[in-house]
Amino acid sequence: MKNTISQALKISEVSESKIGQVDFENLNFGKIFTDHMFVCDYVNGEWQTPEIVPYGPLTMEPSARVFHYGQAVFEGMKAYKDDNGDTFLFRPDENFKRINISAERLAIPEFPEDYFFEGLNALLKLDNEWIKPGYGNSLYIRPFVIATQASVSASEADEYKFMIICSPAQSYYSGDVSVLVAEKFSRSANGGFGYAKAAGNYAGQFYPTKLAQEQGYQQVIWTDANTHEYMEEAGTMNVFFRVNDTLLTAPVSDRILDGVTRKSLITIAEKEGIKVDVRPVKVSEIVEAAKNGSLKEVFGAGTAAVVSPVKAFGYKGEHYEIEKQENSYASYFKKALMDIQYNKAEDTFSWRYKV
Amino acid sequence: MKNTISQALKISEVSESKIGQVDFENLNFGKIFTDHMFVCDYVNGEWQTPEIVPYGPLTMEPSARVFHYGQAVFEGMKAYKDDNGDTFLFRPDENFKRINISAERLAIPEFPEDYFFEGLNALLKLDNEWIKPGYGNSLYIRPFVIATQASVSASEADEYKFMIICSPAQSYYSGDVSVLVAEKFSRSANGGFGYAKAAGNYAGQFYPTKLAQEQGYQQVIWTDANTHEYMEEAGTMNVFFRVNDTLLTAPVSDRILDGVTRKSLITIAEKEGIKVDVRPVKVSEIVEAAKNGSLKEVFGAGTAAVVSPVKAFGYKGEHYEIEKQENSYASYFKKALMDIQYNKAEDTFSWRYKV
Repeated sequence: MKNTISQALKISEVSESKIGQVDFENLNFGKIFTDHMFVCDYVNGEWQTPEIVPYGPLTMEPSARVFHYGQAVFEGMKAYKDDNGDTFLFRPDENFKRINISAERLAIPEFPEDYFFEGLNALLKLDNEWIKPGYGNSLYIRPFVIATQASVSASEADEYKFMIICSPAQSYYSGDVSVLVAEKFSRSANGGFGYAKAAGNYAGQFYPTKLAQEQGYQQVIWTDANTHEYMEEAGTMNVFFRVNDTLLTAPVSDRILDGVTRKSLITIAEKEGIKVDVRPVKVSEIVEAAKNGSLKEVFGAGTAAVVSPVKAFGYKGEHYEIEKQENSYASYFKKALMDIQYNKAEDTFSWRYKV
Repeated sequence: MKNTISQALKISEVSESKIGQVDFENLNFGKIFTDHMFVCDYVNGEWQTPEIVPYGPLTMEPSARVFHYGQAVFEGMKAYKDDNGDTFLFRPDENFKRINISAERLAIPEFPEDYFFEGLNALLKLDNEWIKPGYGNSLYIRPFVIATQASVSASEADEYKFMIICSPAQSYYSGDVSVLVAEKFSRSANGGFGYAKAAGNYAGQFYPTKLAQEQGYQQVIWTDANTHEYMEEAGTMNVFFRVNDTLLTAPVSDRILDGVTRKSLITIAEKEGIKVDVRPVKVSEIVEAAKNGSLKEVFGAGTAAVVSPVKAFGYKGEHYEIEKQENSYASYFKKALMDIQYNKAEDTFSWRYKV
């Protein structure tokens, strides 16, 4: 991208922080936001001067394209603080790359790398007090782009808003989850945009998830839309299956998100000599493994939840419990990842990014 | 739904209309909106008192769910004025039913029928001057619902906004279009929400359409995601193929929108003794028909464009021109439909709705 902006980031600070009103011991995920936000508008064919401004509401035309045609992509990242008060991100280059991959598929203009990192660094420095030290505490970072053009004709917009908002977080999931394997509904199509972190990939999941919840499951594991014979992803997490001592996970595709946590787990596993088979995973083989006792673990992997153990799954009216493992891969991976994220372990893979 | 609202619709009128500033001879589709809009909020588990207020911007939290998870559905309708100054809608009950079908699939609460019709009638009476008489002139009506809850956790929202905005329109398409038949990209999945009029169904179409436009085509005809062997829909229109004197069109499914114009054309065709085969339409049979000269017409059907003739299509690197017919079904259907819409023909099927 042509612009550089070292001089150009405009910052307007709040006169008074609202941090004193926040109970950091009782945070609901994604409800409270920090004092500032990053905003950059795309008009007249280019991204304008980015700004950091006090966090607050937007003014949107009712005809803004995002309300009608769903051009919206986002990322999920976290900032972690170590015991020295230093702040780290985890592989933010992956999130930056991916938001532009998502954007391209939705015909949204590419966002410049220097705008992204300069804005993010400045924002995290300004709202540094919101990042609490302590294992499990983090600042959840939500970069997103929405189509703002005021006109309801069905084509890609020519005006957008790129924003970064931040929300202090504790751990996302409470306890192990039960999941329902999808038999009828699906999340994405071949040739679609399931691989993108796009708003439209989420809207269709809530109704099937609600139906699953009525059956006592918290989440859905999506299967391929053609046959429903293959495990894909859980919608907000990629999914791993441990059969005996081998990990199975679906390859990324145009239907499956290339998760940062997913690929980091694979790297850690390989280094530790844990065998990972990245290949299409049949539902029937997982059911069989559950029956014969070789299915040791199932877990989701994603930024919000890090690693989220699954304690049971449902499929075709049957319910399969997964026996709790003493030395689970899930806990091993969760600790390994978090130790890197919180600067408690050596950064063998150069994944940490100091703010 | 439990509520009735005869007494409860709150109306705040503009002090001065902006209609004098509008050039009704040169309208860009969907850019200019009338003086008023209908707004109804869903909070605390129910739809609140609906209001008609001056058209204007919304205040939205950056964390509003619609920006992140795409819960957004809409409808497209038109109001037509006859030479006596009477205003009509075309099968508005179908749009009302469909917005709730779309809403259900996206886990959005059902909107009450009386709120919808009472609000719509009041809005159209208030902005009556914006509906210009004259064949082809109309007021495009856009009801839509968006998730407004301020929180970025990935689940269905518990706060929504239902709105109706209106935009004066001339005819939507200028001239016949060339379309590209999709070979790689797709619009929707089995078990997905392609049948819903949901924002997320549009966002993914713009990039493939842009690529098609680089090859000289204006639109894409989507094919099934599994095999790309069957014609589905054009994204903003259903598609009809006339082979000799028989019309072919794909059956509606969970991937294909149940278009009001589509079903109205089928009804008119049946009454006129034109054979309509509603069945899966192979791309190969259309290519073959184009080659042997039996493909007489291809046209799209949708509210915005009414009937939109296709003059050529591309498929696997080949370009197929469709010879212009003297007495085309497309023109016949367009006139038949518009005559009903503009109160120039008998309303045999009780499709007109007087405002």
